[in-house]
Amino acid sequence: MCHHCVVETVKERMLSRRSFFRGAAAVAAAGAVAPLGALPAAAQSLSITGKPVDLTHELHPDFPTFFGEQQFFPEQKFEFSKNGFNLFEIRVNEHTGTHLDAPLHFSADGDSVAEIPVEKLVAPLVIIDIREKAAANADAQLTPEDLKAWTDANGPLPQGACVAMLSGWDAFVDTPKFRNADDKKAMHFPGFHVEAVQALIESGEAVGIAVDTLSLDFGPSPDFATHYAWLPSGRWGLEGASNLAALPAKGATLIVGAPKFRGGTGGPTRAIAIG
Amino acid sequence: MCHHCVVETVKERMLSRRSFFRGAAAVAAAGAVAPLGALPAAAQSLSITGKPVDLTHELHPDFPTFFGEQQFFPEQKFEFSKNGFNLFEIRVNEHTGTHLDAPLHFSADGDSVAEIPVEKLVAPLVIIDIREKAAANADAQLTPEDLKAWTDANGPLPQGACVAMLSGWDAFVDTPKFRNADDKKAMHFPGFHVEAVQALIESGEAVGIAVDTLSLDFGPSPDFATHYAWLPSGRWGLEGASNLAALPAKGATLIVGAPKFRGGTGGPTRAIAIG
Repeated sequence: MCHHCVVETVKERMLSRRSFFRGAAAVAAAGAVAPLGALPAAAQSLSITGKPVDLTHELHPDFPTFFGEQQFFPEQKFEFSKNGFNLFEIRVNEHTGTHLDAPLHFSADGDSVAEIPVEKLVAPLVIIDIREKAAANADAQLTPEDLKAWTDANGPLPQGACVAMLSGWDAFVDTPKFRNADDKKAMHFPGFHVEAVQALIESGEAVGIAVDTLSLDFGPSPDFATHYAWLPSGRWGLEGASNLAALPAKGATLIVGAPKFRGGTGGPTRAIAIG
Repeated sequence: MCHHCVVETVKERMLSRRSFFRGAAAVAAAGAVAPLGALPAAAQSLSITGKPVDLTHELHPDFPTFFGEQQFFPEQKFEFSKNGFNLFEIRVNEHTGTHLDAPLHFSADGDSVAEIPVEKLVAPLVIIDIREKAAANADAQLTPEDLKAWTDANGPLPQGACVAMLSGWDAFVDTPKFRNADDKKAMHFPGFHVEAVQALIESGEAVGIAVDTLSLDFGPSPDFATHYAWLPSGRWGLEGASNLAALPAKGATLIVGAPKFRGGTGGPTRAIAIG
């Protein structure tokens, strides 16, 4: 499917499911609809407690990628034994390893990674555990019903939250199962259902989502529906998070150490949670 | 001077000033000497309050560099209007923009940027204001006496701290004064005096230092004495920090969003403080 067709298909799906989204939003969330760009909770004074937890995979040349090709190329330019210091030049696709998707990644003129306000890079971390269904079905998706189960158990989503999908997929990062490509090259791993992110947009609390897989969309997605719904709304996505299982479902805070590349669409990110 | 000569010169300086360092440490700091590698305060449960402040400069192709040559090369690989999404490949020297120096940068086998424990990337932020003397003298250095003035006013250094030099030099980032090279190509900007970092090593509290200039050493340094004293001790340095003036001298917390490049000597870093 050409990229134009993909966009048009997604738009049609958006329109035809609009009434569903409205219903899903009412089901999923507690708060009133917030205007886009409203400052999140972090614009207020924060109170953060806990221990630091690194949610970042180590990045290396063989790190698995969405496109299946190498995307990280370090080249040593200076060596301690010869030059008195060590230094590398790095060539890297922005969307490699644990990394951020800025709004600009899937929009004509959304915020670049440098333009995201810092208040949106410090976010109460909501962790939704779908490990059981992901273990049973690699194509599992985080749905509005999963959002509802979380709010039923934990109360309303915090303002300015990052909603993270814990599928357990980070355990496979050094194995072929991380991409889990079939013989037709379709990948199979969990992701956010488009209806879940549309519900999050309509309810207004979340500034970002995070996945422990290679993509915000589930592996076999034909159309990047979740990317096209979420990122143009002015929100970010963190892909390839690790270690989410070390944190509680509610109460941790995520600090998104995304690079501040001018005009960038994202980049390898140090994601640190305190919780 | 060749790199071997630099190393030897620095070693000689270290030995000859050893007795001074002992005195400086006694002057500068309050705590007992901690063993290298002792876990900092962040290994305990943290309590952080305040608003997020971005200490990161935007990185772009013309960003000033220590070597004076371009070090950041973004190349757009996909465009929204043609491909349905935007994506860049980045080529970048690790030591560009607001960035981290890992111990490995100036040692044979120190910690790479991926090996620094996360507990050392969340640090109580001590800000030492030398703007007055930096305005009077571009070659000003942060000395043991400046450390003492801070502890006299604010009490002991917190365990696991990052000690930051606020020289005001970030205001010059878009001007030639950031490098401030003279007609012999020697640069002129403030930095940490080697005796200050040696005092910090001996007193044991600090896990990192930060500067708002291009180098941990002051501009005209002939020998990287501060780099060679500090980084091989297993501690990190943040170079090119911005916006330190927005924070109090004591009480903020720094989260170092350094990339997790395997074997890397540092990298462009999102530095976020909460204070």
